[in-house]
Amino acid sequence: MEKQIYDLAIIGAGPAGLTAGVYAARAGLNVAMIERGAPGGQMVNTGEIENYTGFEMISGPELSMKMFEHAQKTGAKYVYGDVQDVTVLENGTHSINLGQKEVEAKAVIVATGTVHRPLNVPGEKELSGRGISFCAICDGAFFKGRKVAVIGGGDSAVEEAIYLAGLCEKVYIVHRRDELRAQKILQNRAFAIDNIEMVWDTVVESFEEASGKLGSIKTKSVKTGDVSSLEVDGAFIYVGLDPITNMVKGLGITDARGYIEVNPHMETKLPGVFAAGDVTNKELRQVVTATNDGAIAAQTAYKYIETTLKSS
Amino acid sequence: MEKQIYDLAIIGAGPAGLTAGVYAARAGLNVAMIERGAPGGQMVNTGEIENYTGFEMISGPELSMKMFEHAQKTGAKYVYGDVQDVTVLENGTHSINLGQKEVEAKAVIVATGTVHRPLNVPGEKELSGRGISFCAICDGAFFKGRKVAVIGGGDSAVEEAIYLAGLCEKVYIVHRRDELRAQKILQNRAFAIDNIEMVWDTVVESFEEASGKLGSIKTKSVKTGDVSSLEVDGAFIYVGLDPITNMVKGLGITDARGYIEVNPHMETKLPGVFAAGDVTNKELRQVVTATNDGAIAAQTAYKYIETTLKSS
Repeated sequence: MEKQIYDLAIIGAGPAGLTAGVYAARAGLNVAMIERGAPGGQMVNTGEIENYTGFEMISGPELSMKMFEHAQKTGAKYVYGDVQDVTVLENGTHSINLGQKEVEAKAVIVATGTVHRPLNVPGEKELSGRGISFCAICDGAFFKGRKVAVIGGGDSAVEEAIYLAGLCEKVYIVHRRDELRAQKILQNRAFAIDNIEMVWDTVVESFEEASGKLGSIKTKSVKTGDVSSLEVDGAFIYVGLDPITNMVKGLGITDARGYIEVNPHMETKLPGVFAAGDVTNKELRQVVTATNDGAIAAQTAYKYIETTLKSS
Repeated sequence: MEKQIYDLAIIGAGPAGLTAGVYAARAGLNVAMIERGAPGGQMVNTGEIENYTGFEMISGPELSMKMFEHAQKTGAKYVYGDVQDVTVLENGTHSINLGQKEVEAKAVIVATGTVHRPLNVPGEKELSGRGISFCAICDGAFFKGRKVAVIGGGDSAVEEAIYLAGLCEKVYIVHRRDELRAQKILQNRAFAIDNIEMVWDTVVESFEEASGKLGSIKTKSVKTGDVSSLEVDGAFIYVGLDPITNMVKGLGITDARGYIEVNPHMETKLPGVFAAGDVTNKELRQVVTATNDGAIAAQTAYKYIETTLKSS
């Protein structure tokens, strides 16, 4: 099997991984950025990004390419591959199994991100980024003064509905049950807001297009079976978020929900293994917070390689 | 006295303050960004920035203007002024005294940054950004394979010298005394590195130009009074960093060194007062870490204003 040797292997080339690449390469490390899909992570599936400071408005794919080219320019190497698992060898180095090949590195940064659980209904995929969003803080401002729906009933769904209510004319919370899962304090807050309207016992049948964008949601009552149409400009799907940590399951660095536990230096409990970005147990998942994590993880990994390994 | 009323006042328009402006304005808050100098903070005095992911290479002033325009475009208002002090009024709002005028706000984010202590010698100001730097992680990569000097003897000076030794042909540590102040472990590490050379008992007399950039350092032995010339392409001055917190001295939110103590949500111990960026008690002071802090501070301030104030 082909084996490549690096100082540092970064798994995932979203904003966290790419920034870690920039910082580690500029520190003089030999760096591999391993990615199985298009570089950019969730940015690739984002229409417009308006909150990465310095770019007033940039498309997700364009910012992805800029960051990817930037990291490569500084010297970080792009390695295509789907990581199967990571093992710590007896000599302390890390073996990253890519199926057809192996990458060996003194340190590893896991920056694999998360995936939003989709509803898996017609129109959802097609209208993502054209009315359908998975992030109110990212995209809420695009729907100022408009009508939107939030799909879900947990903490995130209700929090984001409250956030959207400050910007939008009307916010529907579409929930499959007749009560919310969210904490009571969030529920009370939402119920007290005039422009939030609950749509109980209702599931989404499909998202319907109008002039190339989301125009309405076809809903169905789980009690009566009645089908209705909800006219909205935006829909925010909050039915769950899953960290992508299958390849590090064996390392015991994740919490009960699967997120990687890190301290403020982005260290996991395993020496030489760091994590950055959405995959960590953090609160605010944004491009600017991912780049922060990537820089810190690279700096800590650099120190680990330079000091721990050289002095041993 | 003129009084302006906002939801949120951000003191300082560097990358932390400007990103807080973007996030708070996009959340629908009425935001003032108060700045006494040129927007951009320390970026304004930085020649080239190569580690703000997405911009392979951009001048500090240009990135400053891009971020400033971005924040204004989202609706955050620019208020010119030098903040004298901040007081919390009885009703819980915050009064920000700008001498000639007053800004009143429900919440405040302090993002005032730090200043590098200069050596105050000839050529230092003129050659800053043209060979003289205050940040090895930012600028070290520009001096790959070249000779540089680090001025100072504390932890930062020695840490950055070690960092630079991995990139540069030669690193001189110029120190006024015959021993370092840095922790022993850092000293030992530096002493073991072949391309680090100590220049003891020596102070900088002046920085000398060659073809528009730093060419050499005129040094003087404090023991013999002898004057020498040290030929280097770069000089990194690490004689101290001071947080700019004079205007919040009365609030009791700073640590012994004057930095503002914040938790991971960027909350200070005072309700409604948040801080972000270099002025906080953090480790890695970079543009990407400042923008992270700004986004988090804005999000926490937003929640504070929306929930704490509305429910009271």
